[in-house]
Amino acid sequence: MLADRSSSPTPSLPSAAPSSTLAVMNFLNEVALDHPLATSLASGRPAERFFDLARWLGELPRFVAYFAKQSGVDYGTAERRLAQYGRTAGVINDLVAAQVTADQGLGCTSDQIVLTAGCQEAIAICLQALCSEPGDVLVVRSPTYIGATGIAELYGIGVVGVSCADPDQFVDALADVVADVTRSGRRVRALYVIPTFDNPSGTSLSAAVRADLVGWCAERRIAVLEDSPYDLFRFDGAPVAPAAAVDEPGCVLFLGTYSKTLCPAVRVGFVRVPPRWFGSEDAARALVERLVALKSFLTVNTSQLMQAVVGGVLLANGGSLARANAPAVAHYRANRDRMLAALTDAFRSEPDARWNAPEGGFFLTLTLPIRFGRDEVEACAREQRVVVTPLSFFAIPPDDAHARTVRLAFSSVSADEIAPAVHRLAAFVESRL
Amino acid sequence: MLADRSSSPTPSLPSAAPSSTLAVMNFLNEVALDHPLATSLASGRPAERFFDLARWLGELPRFVAYFAKQSGVDYGTAERRLAQYGRTAGVINDLVAAQVTADQGLGCTSDQIVLTAGCQEAIAICLQALCSEPGDVLVVRSPTYIGATGIAELYGIGVVGVSCADPDQFVDALADVVADVTRSGRRVRALYVIPTFDNPSGTSLSAAVRADLVGWCAERRIAVLEDSPYDLFRFDGAPVAPAAAVDEPGCVLFLGTYSKTLCPAVRVGFVRVPPRWFGSEDAARALVERLVALKSFLTVNTSQLMQAVVGGVLLANGGSLARANAPAVAHYRANRDRMLAALTDAFRSEPDARWNAPEGGFFLTLTLPIRFGRDEVEACAREQRVVVTPLSFFAIPPDDAHARTVRLAFSSVSADEIAPAVHRLAAFVESRL
Repeated sequence: MLADRSSSPTPSLPSAAPSSTLAVMNFLNEVALDHPLATSLASGRPAERFFDLARWLGELPRFVAYFAKQSGVDYGTAERRLAQYGRTAGVINDLVAAQVTADQGLGCTSDQIVLTAGCQEAIAICLQALCSEPGDVLVVRSPTYIGATGIAELYGIGVVGVSCADPDQFVDALADVVADVTRSGRRVRALYVIPTFDNPSGTSLSAAVRADLVGWCAERRIAVLEDSPYDLFRFDGAPVAPAAAVDEPGCVLFLGTYSKTLCPAVRVGFVRVPPRWFGSEDAARALVERLVALKSFLTVNTSQLMQAVVGGVLLANGGSLARANAPAVAHYRANRDRMLAALTDAFRSEPDARWNAPEGGFFLTLTLPIRFGRDEVEACAREQRVVVTPLSFFAIPPDDAHARTVRLAFSSVSADEIAPAVHRLAAFVESRL
Repeated sequence: MLADRSSSPTPSLPSAAPSSTLAVMNFLNEVALDHPLATSLASGRPAERFFDLARWLGELPRFVAYFAKQSGVDYGTAERRLAQYGRTAGVINDLVAAQVTADQGLGCTSDQIVLTAGCQEAIAICLQALCSEPGDVLVVRSPTYIGATGIAELYGIGVVGVSCADPDQFVDALADVVADVTRSGRRVRALYVIPTFDNPSGTSLSAAVRADLVGWCAERRIAVLEDSPYDLFRFDGAPVAPAAAVDEPGCVLFLGTYSKTLCPAVRVGFVRVPPRWFGSEDAARALVERLVALKSFLTVNTSQLMQAVVGGVLLANGGSLARANAPAVAHYRANRDRMLAALTDAFRSEPDARWNAPEGGFFLTLTLPIRFGRDEVEACAREQRVVVTPLSFFAIPPDDAHARTVRLAFSSVSADEIAPAVHRLAAFVESRL
């Protein structure tokens, strides 16, 4: 996919590229294309059965009317204003703030919110704002979401992984990594983490770890990028407040998306900046303005039509998406349970196979008695028509610690395919022992 | 707006920023906010009266049906697939290619097109692809659109302006600038230019200059970013083919947007890569893939719902937007004529005032017998309730050559405000003589 600079006839295809990330994405795409009949336990897409496009688009006028009233103009004027260029920070900020407050227990006002073209753009502008100087480093919980590490690599930001098998030990592991980076003369500016139902691990950080994390990072002036795509998909157990909710000092940028709670095609995400940034209200305001400015140079503003659809759905649901997402949560819970039951059944004669049972989200991880890398992905797709993702693909740097572990996604696979696919995966493992 | 790094309590608000661009944007916003009753001849927004949101949204099912047929699936499946994550390069590429072919006389196939979240993202990914190494330089026709120079500055790309009063001398002026840059040890990688109805000058490059430009740049392996937001808004004269249409060697990246032909809120733009990139089909394919990869890290993909709206409108209009935009063209033409008549009338006793009469687009420029900078913008808004934009705001670097010239936008001002506003501007000038 990447141009080979040495043989390229043009000087215009530079080598600076997040090559490892792209290689992973390309490889998985190619396996899927080469084996169209294989069941994918690799795709972490939301389940399409809950996409209710006609109804969602039907809520757009509800937001237009709301916007008209708010702006003191008639409906037609409001509609035309929404179709025009508009406020870079967004037009549904109050509704997003209300939803974050209602659904995440995270107090929020509209001036803390910057709307973005999906959460990917939110990560991009936060990294630009936080890590703009040579030697600036982003640390990530490793393995992690490759979109975050990919954009960091693209911007030439050093990325260092914090590998930690036990989430309860995360802050200690982080401290070791930060000490190493600091000794090397570089400076850790930010940590990217998905505390709730992590992608790819499916694990969560406890309330105690979140509190420690905030205190530890705040003291060292390290920003925390808290990504929250799966927070509303909890199946069991009591909710744990986001790190941002216990962020008294002001070091957490909370990132959100409507790609999972509505659908990816709205491309609406956001950043919530804390009321004080490392203690300063002025610095928080300046950071909001900086993010808005950076956003304006990437995409001008977030589609006001798509914002209006999200806004209309929020208004139609009284400001919260918890109830609207209940059927999806039930579906994902049932899929997780089917997968856990299938794993117990399929791997009953493999005492070395282990897996976790996440309390929510889209993923779990399975550790096998064999190594599972690129060759095994290909062979398993070919021989058993099942595609899974090695955890090592998400590791920063690629390491051996996850060589026997795979990520299984249960979000978008159809319910009746889960058990057969897991059994075929087990048969593949059996054949390789 | 920018955090003052020296006094900031946090290390996380870096100074690296396109400060001049932001300062300009902020200043104009503030003037508009401070003088809400002033007539704006500064805003180059499209006229809202042609926004037909209900009808456009009503065309979405037309594209869903088209996409269903193309994909060999039923309507409901197609609808859900469009709501899902999807192809990074886009889903309406064939329709965009057909429209570019029909409306711009620019042959095009779907695999040459990468859809983007508005044209701003297209500029961003092109610059990332073309100018990724220290010492890489973007040259721009100066003055120019500040969104292009802003993102370049943000990425740390050197930006050098080619100031040239006579568009027919543009290639000579470019050659001088490129020679200077090369002598300084840096390398010009790309040229950004709006050949048709330029923002801010309103001028166009002739067919002969376009052909020269392509030949000259191709020979030196300099990529041309040809931005085309105003191409379809021609009032008089014969159409001039885009530079990309005479780009035999393959050095032009043609940038397009639906922000003006439909409305800004769709946030749909695109890049067209030539069939051969500096002579090589492989290099062209690699460049498409590189742009797709870069785009995936900024915004994953372009909202498929907004693409579907654009696609539906294109289908409803037989693949061309020329006829659909005829009423808007007539409106902008009438506004230009009103402005020209008002200028003739208002400045009849000022022999030193000069203006151009563009054959299309949204802007013209007016050279005054007085200097017109920040102070005059503020004073004119306060005293005469008219806001205009000094041309020097768009100059790279800020220079004295444009100190007496302002840009007048006739696109979004209401018809009956044009003459009074131009007369008040003339009164302001009179008062300062």
